[in-house]
Amino acid sequence: MSLQPVELNKAYRLLQVGPTTMISAKHNGNANVMAAAWVSLVGINKVMAYIGPQAYTRGLVEESGLFAVQIPVVSQMETVLYAGEHSYRDRPDKNHKIPTFYLKEFDVPLVEGCAGWLVCKVIPNAAYELEHNLFMGEIAGAWSDDRVFRNGHWIFDEAPDELRTIHYVAGGQFYAIGKGTRFDHGPGKD
Amino acid sequence: MSLQPVELNKAYRLLQVGPTTMISAKHNGNANVMAAAWVSLVGINKVMAYIGPQAYTRGLVEESGLFAVQIPVVSQMETVLYAGEHSYRDRPDKNHKIPTFYLKEFDVPLVEGCAGWLVCKVIPNAAYELEHNLFMGEIAGAWSDDRVFRNGHWIFDEAPDELRTIHYVAGGQFYAIGKGTRFDHGPGKD
Repeated sequence: MSLQPVELNKAYRLLQVGPTTMISAKHNGNANVMAAAWVSLVGINKVMAYIGPQAYTRGLVEESGLFAVQIPVVSQMETVLYAGEHSYRDRPDKNHKIPTFYLKEFDVPLVEGCAGWLVCKVIPNAAYELEHNLFMGEIAGAWSDDRVFRNGHWIFDEAPDELRTIHYVAGGQFYAIGKGTRFDHGPGKD
Repeated sequence: MSLQPVELNKAYRLLQVGPTTMISAKHNGNANVMAAAWVSLVGINKVMAYIGPQAYTRGLVEESGLFAVQIPVVSQMETVLYAGEHSYRDRPDKNHKIPTFYLKEFDVPLVEGCAGWLVCKVIPNAAYELEHNLFMGEIAGAWSDDRVFRNGHWIFDEAPDELRTIHYVAGGQFYAIGKGTRFDHGPGKD
């Protein structure tokens, strides 16, 4: 795989396909990764993520003002379940099972093996955060595995099936993204 | 198809798979349907939808306090593109091409042929709405086509492929949801 930067005005396309994500953050030497299904776009340059009060990651986001949203793939389903079922609070060795790496631009851990990564700077809003557990972030950097997202487009049908995005429902049930169809018109044309 | 109610505590599963949606609303005899990719869950009983200031539907939501989020399927890709490319403001006959029906419980049009429908009551919040075009709604009713979502679960791999959810990227490119994988553990177990 080759990690490539994604133009910021096309980074929304990483999320618009509706994948289940993982959110990571770091503060003061503590880093964590959580599973997150409730992450959405707010326009093309902002992200809104639901981070519940029990999540250890939440404090790291609040303190550092930074979080990463990454897009795991078929080969990582068990990692996503593991991240969702265990809290760093109860299992401080949790992250040994979730390998991460760092880019020089941002001090936030990124999960290895994902299809895409968005680093977001928190736009502080106490009302959203306290009332509804919603954290808004401006997309400050984005990268993709260019085997599956290249030149601003997903190319799932050309890539190995292990790199398809995953979409969690409930009770251990995931669906992978499937077959593509392209019309010669539609919003967001290059 | 058979339209069946979905238990409210499982309605989030309709959206959690990350589909592109259509939002509809009605006020004072005017009804409209828009395409909406930026719709997400806020916990299991609330929805947050980005509805831009130019959308005719926005006024209907503001006035009626009600909107429906529906989940279109493979056979409706062109309908979703059509809804996204044309405004009721410029084309008052727009909705003739998007057949809708009504349930007796709520005075909001629902698009025929979708896989699921969530009717949401607006939780008014001027700050979210005016600053970020975000409308929050409590899920007040939900229904599914039980050929594809039954007993609180998607059953895509048993249903006709035309009933798979669709996930818009950009420039006329959709992906259908694909293959399922089930683990015997994971959040949201029945």
